[in-house]
Amino acid sequence: MAAMVVKNRQIMLKDYVTGSFEVSDLQLHDGTCLLQLQEGTKDVLLKNLYISPDPYMRGRMQKRTNSYVDSFLPGSVITGFGVSQVVLSSHPKFSKGDFVTGFTGWEDFSIVKGESLRPLPTGNSFPLTHFLGVLGMPGLTAYAGFYKVCSPKEGDNVFVSAASGAVGQLVGQFAKLLGCYVVGSAGSKEKVDLLKSTFGFDEAFNYREQTDLDAALKKYFPNGIDIYFENVGGKMLDAVLNNINVFARIAVCGMISRYESAEPYAIQNLIQLIPKRAKMQGFLATDFSHLYPEVTEKVGVLLKEKKVVYIEDVTEGLENAPTAMLDVLHGKNVGKKIVKVSDPDINL
Amino acid sequence: MAAMVVKNRQIMLKDYVTGSFEVSDLQLHDGTCLLQLQEGTKDVLLKNLYISPDPYMRGRMQKRTNSYVDSFLPGSVITGFGVSQVVLSSHPKFSKGDFVTGFTGWEDFSIVKGESLRPLPTGNSFPLTHFLGVLGMPGLTAYAGFYKVCSPKEGDNVFVSAASGAVGQLVGQFAKLLGCYVVGSAGSKEKVDLLKSTFGFDEAFNYREQTDLDAALKKYFPNGIDIYFENVGGKMLDAVLNNINVFARIAVCGMISRYESAEPYAIQNLIQLIPKRAKMQGFLATDFSHLYPEVTEKVGVLLKEKKVVYIEDVTEGLENAPTAMLDVLHGKNVGKKIVKVSDPDINL
Repeated sequence: MAAMVVKNRQIMLKDYVTGSFEVSDLQLHDGTCLLQLQEGTKDVLLKNLYISPDPYMRGRMQKRTNSYVDSFLPGSVITGFGVSQVVLSSHPKFSKGDFVTGFTGWEDFSIVKGESLRPLPTGNSFPLTHFLGVLGMPGLTAYAGFYKVCSPKEGDNVFVSAASGAVGQLVGQFAKLLGCYVVGSAGSKEKVDLLKSTFGFDEAFNYREQTDLDAALKKYFPNGIDIYFENVGGKMLDAVLNNINVFARIAVCGMISRYESAEPYAIQNLIQLIPKRAKMQGFLATDFSHLYPEVTEKVGVLLKEKKVVYIEDVTEGLENAPTAMLDVLHGKNVGKKIVKVSDPDINL
Repeated sequence: MAAMVVKNRQIMLKDYVTGSFEVSDLQLHDGTCLLQLQEGTKDVLLKNLYISPDPYMRGRMQKRTNSYVDSFLPGSVITGFGVSQVVLSSHPKFSKGDFVTGFTGWEDFSIVKGESLRPLPTGNSFPLTHFLGVLGMPGLTAYAGFYKVCSPKEGDNVFVSAASGAVGQLVGQFAKLLGCYVVGSAGSKEKVDLLKSTFGFDEAFNYREQTDLDAALKKYFPNGIDIYFENVGGKMLDAVLNNINVFARIAVCGMISRYESAEPYAIQNLIQLIPKRAKMQGFLATDFSHLYPEVTEKVGVLLKEKKVVYIEDVTEGLENAPTAMLDVLHGKNVGKKIVKVSDPDINL
């Protein structure tokens, strides 16, 4: 029997992005997909259900070398974390109908290597979207970044920037569970309210309303900052460096203020690392992939016991993924941004 | 018998330094010292033999708060590390004639708390000056900074800035002993020659002759930098950040390029910490004071076996201490700068 050909909408990179990212940098193409796997491979054909626009993807849209992850190629499909359903499998670990997560394409159907996929836990009772957020890469980032990089202890004064985002909201809640004093910054009143009411941060402020970040930090941290979970870079980092305590730890997770800026703000106050004997450490979730089972289990329990909540912000439709990406880069999302591509297929 | 009064020359801070440091910021006063200790104290009266102009002292000449060490007061005697001989002692640990090291004044005679002093090792056969260098605070800084902060291992590619200085020359030699590839930067041909011929660095370069530090580092580190021992800050740090390897460690010991600059060069490339999962850690030797005995013993053995050499640059006369300080800040010293105040008194 001849293999079926289906329509396959695909989001592709138009060309390397040189200035600010614009929605038109990503274009929707009407392609096709042959529902067949090559013999002799361990490939899996996926129907994509949810995809994840993440800040780190911005760097892949530029032409660059010497990075931990390759650039996207102009005219090729964008790839990123997704939750998908297995349509065909040549890999013994996966069968038709299984739900999986891993790197996939921004398209209706993708063919990927089976070994790159994680099956969702058996008897999963969480929303599928959670595997792109609290139980996915952002959850692992928050978990490893906070517990493994920040060396946190009860009573520490913890500051989180981009605090209502995919990672920040979890870091703040983990810190509260440990008995820390936690302050977050975000870019709107709505997010600041969320930080205090929903995520239980002790304090939160809108950085866009602060003319003097140093003064703001001195107000919220009269006893200084022990841990800074860095998501934004730039002026905020400089202000933090002026307010760190002795033996402070700065976990450098991201610097989103840098990703879109042609003339980046340069850091003045690094010298504070010396008198404060402070540590700044960059990290990537990928180095902690072995902790996925631990995150799924421990954070899963926290979710079920409602000790941790997680807010997602779902955009409907693959065609709207470019706008969703822009929203993430401009902080217009509230909580983890996810793009819904399709409903699961009950016939699979 | 009435206590004797002796002449006591003293180097004092004229006023807080606001611009660049000038020799005239430190002034020589002709004072006196009463050769007597107050009853009920554990004070020790010292005849100062050698004093140590160190870069960190520059910061103490400014009016500032919130630092790890207080500012000097205008009109008061400069204090710093010294090697001295005990004239009178109310402390049970010290007797007349003993050689000691610790914080003392930039003056002929000082009265200090006995508990702040370290006796020189019994049967010491090293030059007294060594206790302000290789066996003193700079030695501890190099030892703790390299072995405890840099997490070094055989085969690491190590870069040391200000590499012929009091600390840098030791870091490079420690790294060579461990089997690392070691490159140093310094500010003159004489120093570069010293690094290669005397200290055994694999390579060395004069940073003043490099128009493109990034290119220089790429030349000397075709395989990237694993460890950077940071003494200078500014442009050099930025160039290093562009050349670090995955899991690189940057030990931030000093940023001498910052100390004299009103408009400091700001750092652009910190974002490299993320893809390289690199660590930057500030430290102070004072946090490792418990390692002094270990340094004295282990580095003492290395010196005796001539596996480590140490170059000093001695200025004669307390009156020349202000010029010696300027030399240190401008990199005009070759090796550890020390000021000789007086010969030991054989009658003590």
